[in-house]
Amino acid sequence: MPVGTQGSVKTLLQRDLESIGAGIILGNTYHLMLRPGDALIARLGGLHRFIGWSRPMLTDSGGFQVFSLADRRRLIEDGAEFRSHLDGSLHMLTPERAVDIQARLGSDIAMVLDECLAYPATHDAAAASMTRSARWARRCRERFLAGMPAAEGPGTNPGQAQFGIVQGGLFPDLRKESADLTREMGFEGYALGGLSVGEPIEEMYATVELTAGRLPPNQPRYLMGAGTPEDLVECVARGVDMFDCVMPTRNARNGQLFTSEGRINIRNAQYVDDTRPVDPRCNCYTCTHHSRAYLRHLYMAGEAVARTLNTLHNLTFYLDTMQRIRDAIALRTFETFRQEFLRLRSS
Amino acid sequence: MPVGTQGSVKTLLQRDLESIGAGIILGNTYHLMLRPGDALIARLGGLHRFIGWSRPMLTDSGGFQVFSLADRRRLIEDGAEFRSHLDGSLHMLTPERAVDIQARLGSDIAMVLDECLAYPATHDAAAASMTRSARWARRCRERFLAGMPAAEGPGTNPGQAQFGIVQGGLFPDLRKESADLTREMGFEGYALGGLSVGEPIEEMYATVELTAGRLPPNQPRYLMGAGTPEDLVECVARGVDMFDCVMPTRNARNGQLFTSEGRINIRNAQYVDDTRPVDPRCNCYTCTHHSRAYLRHLYMAGEAVARTLNTLHNLTFYLDTMQRIRDAIALRTFETFRQEFLRLRSS
Repeated sequence: MPVGTQGSVKTLLQRDLESIGAGIILGNTYHLMLRPGDALIARLGGLHRFIGWSRPMLTDSGGFQVFSLADRRRLIEDGAEFRSHLDGSLHMLTPERAVDIQARLGSDIAMVLDECLAYPATHDAAAASMTRSARWARRCRERFLAGMPAAEGPGTNPGQAQFGIVQGGLFPDLRKESADLTREMGFEGYALGGLSVGEPIEEMYATVELTAGRLPPNQPRYLMGAGTPEDLVECVARGVDMFDCVMPTRNARNGQLFTSEGRINIRNAQYVDDTRPVDPRCNCYTCTHHSRAYLRHLYMAGEAVARTLNTLHNLTFYLDTMQRIRDAIALRTFETFRQEFLRLRSS
Repeated sequence: MPVGTQGSVKTLLQRDLESIGAGIILGNTYHLMLRPGDALIARLGGLHRFIGWSRPMLTDSGGFQVFSLADRRRLIEDGAEFRSHLDGSLHMLTPERAVDIQARLGSDIAMVLDECLAYPATHDAAAASMTRSARWARRCRERFLAGMPAAEGPGTNPGQAQFGIVQGGLFPDLRKESADLTREMGFEGYALGGLSVGEPIEEMYATVELTAGRLPPNQPRYLMGAGTPEDLVECVARGVDMFDCVMPTRNARNGQLFTSEGRINIRNAQYVDDTRPVDPRCNCYTCTHHSRAYLRHLYMAGEAVARTLNTLHNLTFYLDTMQRIRDAIALRTFETFRQEFLRLRSS
């Protein structure tokens, strides 16, 4: 899922996203609730209509951004109190409020509010945080099943689904307990939270394998906030179905491009007269129309469209990688694909 | 002609430009000669190939930007000496060099080097400047007709045309003399320079009418650097065929949008929940897919795509205006169109 933080996947038109085959995008509840505000979006018919996007959308709970505010937030049992990064105004994000806001936005998949544990954490801290997340998840599920309060008006998407989130840090016993608790609540899908936060990659993979294995095989499993192209392949191998990450879009804006043979930085002087496309294996608009030399020129000249062209390419690379994974699974050649993919990119 | 300063019409992909029917774009010789450099562009096959644009392109001579450098340039009979705004390096732009650089770029229409007179100017200053521009034009034409010097290698566009530029400030006698001198040199087309530089609009219109009337009716007449939508209509009425201006693109990036009923600034609070398109008469991607409310949100949130959507709209408005002018001329209804266009936009 490309990340559309403020109702737009940065630098792209919605038709650009459609053209690269984006089947679902993510919106950040924290940003949208503050600007332009969930009440306004609801009044204008919901997020799909507001941003002109008819394909599926997932919204996060807003918790991750709130917990990133550090000294501008305070955590209590009822929820998280925080000050807006825009104007310093005071807000309270409770499990119920996170559900209501997402109902107003009308996303297709809403996430429960969870506590995002910092890495590293002790077993005690991780246990306390995980059980709090479980209590919050239960409150979210109850609110979700009760439907929007009448005073709030109708939600804008009666078909909205809700995903629970497994926490527990890197501790196998806590992950197992969290997976079981979350599963018992009966969500439409399940996410793996609290990963890709700085832990060693092998620990992340081990935790993904353990956690995904305890979640229902016939429901979507979503790894939040990951990752590199290698992570996509390795985590699908361990049971993950869905990902979101700002890496393809953010790195594109910094000139870093993903290719079938590894990453390149388009600012490098070696590309000044390189007439080859970024990735000869790629069929995106950027690779079929422009040379590395032109992309480097645009980037060095500070032209905004450099970021658009880079973003188109990186997202295409990510979406193509997922498509190739799906194809390989269907053809029962995933293991061969996986080895070849990793070999090419480390060569 | 949308202005593509550094080999890109700011914020747009080439396919966006094609989709709005841009038949020709402008490139700035000053910027391109400094970065990435005309030698590099020639080595990579010329500007069309370098930027991936197969439709016509016009390049200016570089003179206008050089004269804008104020204390970083020195004017002598041979040409203009200047320091790069990028790294302070010293360069000399002579009439011959302006021709050679544009030959290397391989644009479809090249412009002669002229002296850009500041407004206001005395008759003496305007006369001296105009005769110098005429001497430079003669040198440009000779160089152009002689073809690229063998040592420079072949130009990248054997079909390149060259336009002369009429100067003379706002003085009818000087404009007439300049038009006659320029016409005698036998260019493929003729431009009106030194206008839209701060003079009263009625003086510009009068000078355009006088000058255009003395230029060959069967060759293109190009008013450089103008103007507002009203200017397009009023100057076509006075004999102009071609325009270039940064106004639609620059204003778009500042949130100012042109509509059939006048200009609006999308930042204004009144648009916060306005579900109407920018211009209900417009068929551009922006107007057919997005509301003023969404455009305002994107702009206020600092999303780069706001500038892309605004630029798509403004350029569409300009190109549609020119198309409507052409249609009206073909239908012999131009005078009716003109009155209705001006009435709607001032209402």
